[in-house]
Parts: sequence; structure tokens; C-alpha cells
Amino acid sequence: MSKTAVLISTGEELLTGETTDTNSAWLAGALWDRGFHVRRMLTAGDDLEGLLWALNEATQISPVVICTGGLGPTVDDRTAEAVALWAGIERQESSVALAQITARYSRWGRSVSEANRKQAYLPVGAAVLENRWGSAPAFSVTHAGSTVFCLPGVPIEMRNIFEEHIGDGLVAEAPVVMHRVRTFGIPESRLQTILGDMELGSADLGFRAHIPEVQVKLRFDGGVSKAEKEEVLGRVVETLGNAVYTVDGGDLAETVVERLKEASQTVAFAESCTAGLTTAWVVDVPGASDILMESVVVYSNAAKVRLTGVSDSLIAEHGAVSEPVARGLAEGLRRRSGSTWAVGITGIAGPGGGSDKKPVGTVHLAVAGPTGTVHRHAVIPGSRGQVRKRAAGAALALLLQGFDQR
Amino acid sequence: MSKTAVLISTGEELLTGETTDTNSAWLAGALWDRGFHVRRMLTAGDDLEGLLWALNEATQISPVVICTGGLGPTVDDRTAEAVALWAGIERQESSVALAQITARYSRWGRSVSEANRKQAYLPVGAAVLENRWGSAPAFSVTHAGSTVFCLPGVPIEMRNIFEEHIGDGLVAEAPVVMHRVRTFGIPESRLQTILGDMELGSADLGFRAHIPEVQVKLRFDGGVSKAEKEEVLGRVVETLGNAVYTVDGGDLAETVVERLKEASQTVAFAESCTAGLTTAWVVDVPGASDILMESVVVYSNAAKVRLTGVSDSLIAEHGAVSEPVARGLAEGLRRRSGSTWAVGITGIAGPGGGSDKKPVGTVHLAVAGPTGTVHRHAVIPGSRGQVRKRAAGAALALLLQGFDQR
Repeated sequence: MSKTAVLISTGEELLTGETTDTNSAWLAGALWDRGFHVRRMLTAGDDLEGLLWALNEATQISPVVICTGGLGPTVDDRTAEAVALWAGIERQESSVALAQITARYSRWGRSVSEANRKQAYLPVGAAVLENRWGSAPAFSVTHAGSTVFCLPGVPIEMRNIFEEHIGDGLVAEAPVVMHRVRTFGIPESRLQTILGDMELGSADLGFRAHIPEVQVKLRFDGGVSKAEKEEVLGRVVETLGNAVYTVDGGDLAETVVERLKEASQTVAFAESCTAGLTTAWVVDVPGASDILMESVVVYSNAAKVRLTGVSDSLIAEHGAVSEPVARGLAEGLRRRSGSTWAVGITGIAGPGGGSDKKPVGTVHLAVAGPTGTVHRHAVIPGSRGQVRKRAAGAALALLLQGFDQR
Repeated sequence: MSKTAVLISTGEELLTGETTDTNSAWLAGALWDRGFHVRRMLTAGDDLEGLLWALNEATQISPVVICTGGLGPTVDDRTAEAVALWAGIERQESSVALAQITARYSRWGRSVSEANRKQAYLPVGAAVLENRWGSAPAFSVTHAGSTVFCLPGVPIEMRNIFEEHIGDGLVAEAPVVMHRVRTFGIPESRLQTILGDMELGSADLGFRAHIPEVQVKLRFDGGVSKAEKEEVLGRVVETLGNAVYTVDGGDLAETVVERLKEASQTVAFAESCTAGLTTAWVVDVPGASDILMESVVVYSNAAKVRLTGVSDSLIAEHGAVSEPVARGLAEGLRRRSGSTWAVGITGIAGPGGGSDKKPVGTVHLAVAGPTGTVHRHAVIPGSRGQVRKRAAGAALALLLQGFDQR
């Protein structure tokens, strides 16, 4: 293992802050998963000087360089020109690339303009990597011991071309086997401490944090035995216990949708502090309409009463942020909506509204289901936005736990 | 204008894809706003070799370098060491930095460990930039014509220290005046075409796209006359018409909350395809509880009927995605919730569910208010997630328009 790579991203929109470079982080993760170590990331503008500087620096550091952006039809798109200059070769119209561009435009019912035609003007000898998701042709050039892969800056095109044309070739150079243990509820720093101390055999340990979840990545040498792999994976899953909600599956919302679909069951949410966030995540999964019929955002006490049937006196007695009210929201909504499961979420997102007894971040969650109701209480640290995301994540995690314990 | 800067970000978590580098994009935008042109961005790991390479490259290119990350207490945090090596100076314990760390820890009720104390070990002569938001001291070192500002990698600390200690000094070097025209509904490429052709006097034109909105940034030389500035700004606002929802104000949700608060009015949402996203955005604004009591996510037809009172027969006659149903959702919810305004959103987010007459992306929006109901129909391009975000944005924009026309 430990093949290296360097990433280049190009475009004035990155240097003005107009666009955040998410491509480099995605590629870095995809390369790590394939046994590569990204040593540097460089961002340059649309000028040839900047691009040449980046290509020279990158290829001095590593034999594998991936460059994103600068393949479009405008005068600002100069990646092909820069790569030709770097390699000291001419450019010419690539018949392969032109055929792909022409086919793409004809599917769109359009003819190829001079500007589009320019996109097929590639360094002599470049290997064309077909772009089935857009018009900018991708390509690679090998020169003086380094291969430079040039991909469009549009994230969806970049990712698909990488997966289709580049990923497998890189894995063949440094075979690895990847497993992702997806967790919720243990902070990343704590995961690092717990797993950093464990004997993981030949596995390399990686993380990918995306509030509210943390992915634990276990990367094995390609030659790992099935027994070793399963032993290590089993030990990690056992150590992290309830925090693990899937191995090699989707995110929390995807897992919820998948499991409910398999069981032909439905869910509804009564959200106070999260105010629609949990529902929005679930509905972002295609096909969510099979498992979610409705949800209610019950921010005021009056709305809690009117939309879920929880009683005024219960709220008056225990306060809106309390176990009885969370249970009442879930049970009331379950009755009214007829869903298999209903989730009640009430809490204090901040920055105002906290007290000594119920500080900002206090959250009560309840999941009502066919065999009863489970409850969880937490005090979540962070900003208003973080409290809301972590509370929504906790609600989905509790739903999965309730589901598993039917 | 056209002072230059180079950004460095450091940390293995960036090179493994564990974390996306949002600091560089934020800094690039903040520097552009102050008349600077970022020429390169470099990312290196935790090794001294990488950091030294970045410092040498950056300072050869520009006299202003901002470096984020590597100021923590662990052995992986080596920015101060690298800067000292780059400048050829020793490090010593900074009494100013140590006093700040000690004060911070004592506020947290903790004592300063050896590892924390290491954070005060700075290049001799470094200017300490107080960090009031965390324990890592920031600093700057000037050497051979370049100033390197070193900031923590934690975004909130980085941003605050930049605003408090660095931003004003840079503006003094290249005085500029910034205005932000916040728009919704015109794609960025179209905005670029429209405004690129306009005579903008001495103003530089910038953009910041963040679905669903696009910020048009107008950057004037510090010496611009008030008359010129107002003339240009007025012309841009007039040209973009309805698409402009604020100049120098907050985002769509912040603007909605602000205007409703000022008017002591309230709003509720009946969301189908957006399914809680609009409500979640509004509630992400602190103080939203003053203007939003409740919302309903009415994904199924049964939920539409039960939660808003829209009639079964109306849905059967026109289909759930139609003007009458959008109006019915808004008007029904307004009656039931007692809110000043109610918004109905129904559409087809995809990827399935489209037809020739109602393709994926078809959205009907309605806003019911004190003087009646307004409706908008759109066919929104993009992925499921993009359709949902743009539909939620369109709903907030329509609410603001309805509000302005009371």
C-alpha cells in the first residue's frame, strides 16, 4: 500500500470563494479507500501559469495526479492546453472525443458549436475517458513517469467518470478491501481513542465525519484472509455496540427507508426542536413516499395539542421538553396517522430557552411502535444547527433500535 | 486593488477526505470582499516537509499567506514549528499566548497541561492574535517580505479571529466597499451574462452561489463616491427586478423571519414534495419560534385532506400537483393554524413520478395571506435534492413577495 497521489483543482470560482472545492475531499476519500495516500492538494486559477505550476509541482511529488475543472467550452477552460505544455506535446482534435461530444449533443437535439468542438482538442496520445453524464471529455496523459487524469469540475460527472474509468485501475495497482462501519452517538474523537488502542491486524483505520454520523473505515490489504477480516470487523462492531447502525449500508435516513420498505411499514414524525429536519432527511431518499405519509412540526404548545392530541395538562405539568410529552407526541401521532411507527422529538435547540434544569441541547425523544414506546433523553452539545442535526440523527437511530427490537 | 494572497490548509484529515476544506473557500470569499485576489490554495499534511514546501511556495507567490490548522496540542500539530523553520528563527514560550491559554482554561475550570502549554511555544517575535473562541493561539510572522497568518482549523475560531484581527488590517491596505445583492430565481450563468454586459463603473462583480440563492457581490474601490455607488447598485437591483430579495441582508429564511418579526406576524407551511425542508430552514434562524407555530408535511393525499382540509374531490379532479390543490393547502392550513400567512407546496421531486404533462420538477406553490392567495407554477431542473431545495427557496421568495404586496 501507500501509493501516493496529488490532487489539482482549477477555476477562478474556487479562488474567489464562489464555490467550495468538494471534489478534492471526495477524491481524497475515494483514493484512501483504494489504498492511496494523497500527499498534497493544489488549487490554481484559469491562467496557464498557475496550471503549469500545479502540474509541475504535482508530478514532481507523485506519479498519480488527478486534476478537476477547466475542460469546458469557454476561453477560461485551459486544462488541456496546460497539460500539453507540461508534457511538451501538441494538441489535435481527438476523433474519439469529438464522436462522443457529437453523440451527446445529438441526444440533446442540438448541434455541436465551434466552442464545443474545442473541447475535443486534446494532447496528442491522450487516452479519452468517456463522459456519459455531460459534454466535457475527460482524458489522461502519461509523461515522464507520471499520469495526469483530467476530469470535469461538475461533481456528478467527476465522480461517475472516476468510478467508471479510474477507480478500478488504481485498485489493481494497490489492491485493498474496504468496509464501512457506520455509527451514530459516539463523538469522532472518542471513536479515535477507542479504536486507536485496538489491535486491528493489517487493517488501516480511517474516519469520515458527516454530522450527525461518523463512518469508521477499515481498509485491509487485498490479500487479507476472510477469517482475519471477519474477526477484526466483528470485534469493531462489538466494541462500538449500539452506536453501529449498519456495516457497508447507507446513511441513517437511507437505512430507515430501506428497513421500513422491506417490512412494508410506515413512519410519521412529530418534530418540535428539529422542526421538519428529520422528515426532510427521510424524504430526500428516493422512494420515501412508500414509508412516510405525513409528519407534523409542532413548534408551539397549541400545535402539539391540536396536531397530536397530547394533553394541555401534561405539558403544563412536565413542560414541553420532557419524557411524558415526547411519549405523548409519538403515541398521539401514531394513533392519528395510522403509521406503524411514530417518532416524537422535543428539545431546546438554543441559543435561548435553556435553564439550569433543562440546559440548551436538552432533547427528549420517543418512538411509538407496535409493541410499545421507547424513550431517550440527551443533552447535546454544539450550536443551534448542530443540536438540531444531532437530535434528528438520534431520532432516526432510536427508530432503528426500536425497529430491531420488535 | 489586486493585492494577492495564498491560502494554506493543513491536516491529514483533509488528505484522507475525512474533512472537506471549507475554511479555504470562506477565506477566499472574505479576501475577495476586501479587494484581494487569492492566487493559489495549497493543502499539506501534518509532516514538516509538506508544511515547509507549502510555506516556501506560498511566500514566493504572495506577500500575504493565511494558513489554517496545525495549532492544536498534539504531536501532529506542527504549524508553529514549520513557520519557525521557514523563517529561520527559534521558538520560545510566548508569555502573551500562555496567559491567554491559562485564562481560557481557568474559565473552563481546568488547569493547563504540558500538551496545552506547548501551544504557546511560538516563533520568536510572532504577533499573537487572541483567540476568544478556543484554546489554540493564533499568530503571525513576517519574514523576507511575506506575512504568514496562522489560524486554528476549527471554522468558527478561524472566522472570528480573521474578522477580529486580520480583516480590517487588510482592508486598510486595499480599501474597498462591498455590497451584496441577494437573488433568487435566476440561474448563476444567466446572472453572469446579464451583469457581465452591464456598465458597472469601478465596481468588480463577484458571485456566491449557495442553492437556492445566488449572491451578487459588487466591490467598489474605497474612494468610490456615494452617488456612483448608489447609481450602480440601483441599476443592478432594477435590472434583476423581482429576483432581488434583499441588499446586504440575510439569506431567504433570515429575511422571512426578520420581516415577519417586525410585523408581529406568523407563518405555517403545508409541504408535500419539500417535506419539511422549508420549515427546517426557517427554524434554523434563532428566534423563529416567534413567527412559526406549526407546519405539516402532507406527503400522502390522505394527509393533505386530514391536516389541511383540502378536499378529496379537488385532488381527484386536478391531481395532487396542481394549482387548486396548492391553493387549497395554503388556505386550509391558514384557517386551521390561525397563522397570518400559510404556504402550500406540492410538486414532483423525482426521480420517479413524472409524466409528459407534469414532468419531474413540476411545482405548484401558493401563499395565503390577509388579502388573498397568490400562486406560482414552475418546472425546476436538477436532481431530487436540488428540486426540493429550489422549491423550498421559491416558496420563501413567494412569501416575501406576497408580504411586500400587502
